Amino acid sequence: MARKRIDTVLVVKVDADNSRRVPDRLVVEEPLSIQLDGHLVATTMRTPGHDYELAVGFCFSDGLLHGSPVTGVRYCANGSAVDSEFNVVTVETGGRAPVPTPRLGNTSSSCGLCGSQALDELVERISPLDTTKIPSFSVAAVLSLPDVVRSEQDLFDDTGAVHAAAAIDPDGRALIVREDVGRHNAVDKVVGRLLLDGQLPANELALFVSGRASFEMVQKAWAAGFGTVVSVSAPTALAVQTAKRAGITLYGFVRDRQAVRYSPG
Amino acid sequence: MARKRIDTVLVVKVDADNSRRVPDRLVVEEPLSIQLDGHLVATTMRTPGHDYELAVGFCFSDGLLHGSPVTGVRYCANGSAVDSEFNVVTVETGGRAPVPTPRLGNTSSSCGLCGSQALDELVERISPLDTTKIPSFSVAAVLSLPDVVRSEQDLFDDTGAVHAAAAIDPDGRALIVREDVGRHNAVDKVVGRLLLDGQLPANELALFVSGRASFEMVQKAWAAGFGTVVSVSAPTALAVQTAKRAGITLYGFVRDRQAVRYSPG
Repeated sequence: MARKRIDTVLVVKVDADNSRRVPDRLVVEEPLSIQLDGHLVATTMRTPGHDYELAVGFCFSDGLLHGSPVTGVRYCANGSAVDSEFNVVTVETGGRAPVPTPRLGNTSSSCGLCGSQALDELVERISPLDTTKIPSFSVAAVLSLPDVVRSEQDLFDDTGAVHAAAAIDPDGRALIVREDVGRHNAVDKVVGRLLLDGQLPANELALFVSGRASFEMVQKAWAAGFGTVVSVSAPTALAVQTAKRAGITLYGFVRDRQAVRYSPG
Repeated sequence: MARKRIDTVLVVKVDADNSRRVPDRLVVEEPLSIQLDGHLVATTMRTPGHDYELAVGFCFSDGLLHGSPVTGVRYCANGSAVDSEFNVVTVETGGRAPVPTPRLGNTSSSCGLCGSQALDELVERISPLDTTKIPSFSVAAVLSLPDVVRSEQDLFDDTGAVHAAAAIDPDGRALIVREDVGRHNAVDKVVGRLLLDGQLPANELALFVSGRASFEMVQKAWAAGFGTVVSVSAPTALAVQTAKRAGITLYGFVRDRQAVRYSPG
């Protein structure tokens, strides 16, 4: 079922001298509740489309599956056929995944975490990358990625309001491109697609993100086993630390045929 | 206590022909756990600085205070003097605010919400704006805001990796400017400052955001009573619906001396 992803509304374009009313196209943003074996694990604002991939990718990236295979994915089936029925997705593992606890409960110390402790937690939870499988992407391939992915960003063309994430093969081709109002959702949709296709860990692929490289982005890339992360914008200090710890090659500011490699530094 | 907000690391700048190693400045990203009267309510990745404002603004925007006055804000005091001690902030109302429930529990229906239901929930929770107090910002003032705020984005100048939010008076002056790796954190810091100064509701001010105008941004603006929201980028369809419902004047794509007014449309 294709959900509407773009709304058309009347807007007023203004400059210093004039104003005129014109139609404009806006990206749709709707809440999606994600359940794992019947337990609510998150509600995220997302652009409808590829909801199954998003739900599966989220559960995987967030470490909720604990290696359990996904046996089913479906929209909420116990409601009437109203629109909101398609805003809940249930991921099923036949009860093999542990019952999820609310994410707030992750912080056990009363004094919280610092960035390096958050990183230590990841090291415990995520398998190390198999560095023998990580291909070296050529600089030419890396520099070409914004254009390669841009040509498939249909929603961005229409609305200017969505981020993109893509899985890239060693020849610099985009295997999967997903768009969403949320950067993290776009990444989860790519990871979910790879998981459903049995393609994880993605050691031989690069993850391209149209926005900045935050800690969360690199964490998701690491969980999915991407050997390379390419961002068109700036990384944070913790994102760079995380990439180095994971053994991920991290490029940022990939634009205008230049780039910065942050890891290895 | 001033926390480090920028890290310097060695990076490799590459283009099609060359590579060279140079120092680069990265914005710091660290987890902050926010407690309300001793109960953990959220952990967010943020740029250190203005942590009290962020914690207070988050609790307010998220509807957790229920009108209770804030009687104290402090860093976690029961740990040793390690770095992580400054990654937990406790907001105190003397127990007057209801005990918070994890945000996941907000969704009571087994079939989730659609966008218009999410909007209906806001209408129940948030007071209507006092439209008699909302001044009309001149188009000239709106068009000048990116430059006005840009001149105070110190962290962005250094790192290119942070968003800004600002409270703007009817003459187009920036009263408060805050920067953070998270767009929502930058807004919470502005709202927290206004609350601590007894300046809410902010009917007479505009909220400027350096990124897109998502539902969450307009929701926070509405909760704080801003009569006008100005974004340099695109809004989502639900953000525009929300602004119209709230009676907020919403501008987007404010750049190059042009803008689009989405509400009223």
